[in-house]
Amino acid sequence: MTRTDLAPAPARDADPADVTRVAVSTVIFSLRRDHGDHGPRLVLPLVRRTRDPYEGLWALPGGWLAIAEGLEDAASRTLEETTALTPSYLEQLYAFGDVDRSPTRVVSIVYWALLREGEVDAQVAAHEADGTAPENVRWVDVSDLPPLAFDHDQIVGYALWRLRNKVGYSRIAHGLLADEFTLAELREVYEAILGRRLDPANFRRQAENSGTLIPTDRFRTGSHRPARLYRYNRDVELADRGPLGIRPAPNRA
Amino acid sequence: MTRTDLAPAPARDADPADVTRVAVSTVIFSLRRDHGDHGPRLVLPLVRRTRDPYEGLWALPGGWLAIAEGLEDAASRTLEETTALTPSYLEQLYAFGDVDRSPTRVVSIVYWALLREGEVDAQVAAHEADGTAPENVRWVDVSDLPPLAFDHDQIVGYALWRLRNKVGYSRIAHGLLADEFTLAELREVYEAILGRRLDPANFRRQAENSGTLIPTDRFRTGSHRPARLYRYNRDVELADRGPLGIRPAPNRA
Repeated sequence: MTRTDLAPAPARDADPADVTRVAVSTVIFSLRRDHGDHGPRLVLPLVRRTRDPYEGLWALPGGWLAIAEGLEDAASRTLEETTALTPSYLEQLYAFGDVDRSPTRVVSIVYWALLREGEVDAQVAAHEADGTAPENVRWVDVSDLPPLAFDHDQIVGYALWRLRNKVGYSRIAHGLLADEFTLAELREVYEAILGRRLDPANFRRQAENSGTLIPTDRFRTGSHRPARLYRYNRDVELADRGPLGIRPAPNRA
Repeated sequence: MTRTDLAPAPARDADPADVTRVAVSTVIFSLRRDHGDHGPRLVLPLVRRTRDPYEGLWALPGGWLAIAEGLEDAASRTLEETTALTPSYLEQLYAFGDVDRSPTRVVSIVYWALLREGEVDAQVAAHEADGTAPENVRWVDVSDLPPLAFDHDQIVGYALWRLRNKVGYSRIAHGLLADEFTLAELREVYEAILGRRLDPANFRRQAENSGTLIPTDRFRTGSHRPARLYRYNRDVELADRGPLGIRPAPNRA
């Protein structure tokens, strides 16, 4: 009996083993700060799976690409459906398509974004207030991840590697900071991303000589001695997203 | 009559409007040199389409992802089938998935690679010698592209932007050069990538101060005065492909 002798099934009920499907997933990095004088930690949201495969395990937010939906739109939609988060932009990270990365054949287009502490808190609080807070979501420390479904540990590892690489030649740390920040706050973001301590004096010297920071007339006051606030120099083009970018270029903002 | 009244078609003949399919395409950059004293030009291979959609137009080498084939394997296979080229590695560039980029819904995972002049010539010559040279392939100057099928002009534009960005902070030009090269040859590669002339004295000074080049004891002799040959310093980690890289890191080679 050949394949064409079988009763043909409609496309949507086709044997999944015969079809490559496209999914999207998103890695959202943010910072979380414990009480006390420790620096912030780099965290990301995970969603507990409520169905097979990998039921009960944690996974990146995501879902299937719809037939009439762009890739980034699908990433935004599935992120909001699973976590209620709405970052101001998403950047494509990589397409993962190993044959055995899922029980059926799935190519996942992965997006990533940075969210400031305040943005996460505000979005979570708004959803808790109106009773629409998503269930099954947990923010976890990147240095203390639980076992993840599919190849999501590889995806997180790659996203971390890209973030750590990128912080060296772009103003990407700005995506995790308020518009104005002290050099100590900037250093803490670098330390959270790189996962190691940096020498404060060396960091200060390099930051001041980088040409990417502009000192303001304002100071952070509090329990320490007043510290000058800085902002990024938007004339320095460092994190251009290129011809595919959807955000206006910094010097056109 | 509703859709379910229609005789269902087998999965593989399903109405293409209902299925998202995954394709791969590849952008191969190389250099081509005319006779005379001009510098090299940046070129890439295109394949003339022999079927609809866009029959007769030029397109990037590529094809469909097979169900049991990894993304990079598919890119290698379709590249070889269409152009007979076999680069030593491919790097993933971007996934293009706009809803209207093709008459049916197609997500294309695009790979790219650099091929040295000698590699292209050797591979083409071998195939011409045994009568297996592919038809319908043409190498074109990136500054003089014909109209391209699908969104391939956008893809080439993005690949060029990435190449131009990357040449600033990596040893990517090495992928287009022999192991040893003069500073004039290196400058010509930069000029071909950037599409503009560079001041020879400034370029020489920056290259010598970059820490990425090692002078050898050998010289290029010919019609000009002898010029020292350089090679890249492989201890300087500049073009690491990260945890997804399949090439050994330079300092482990």
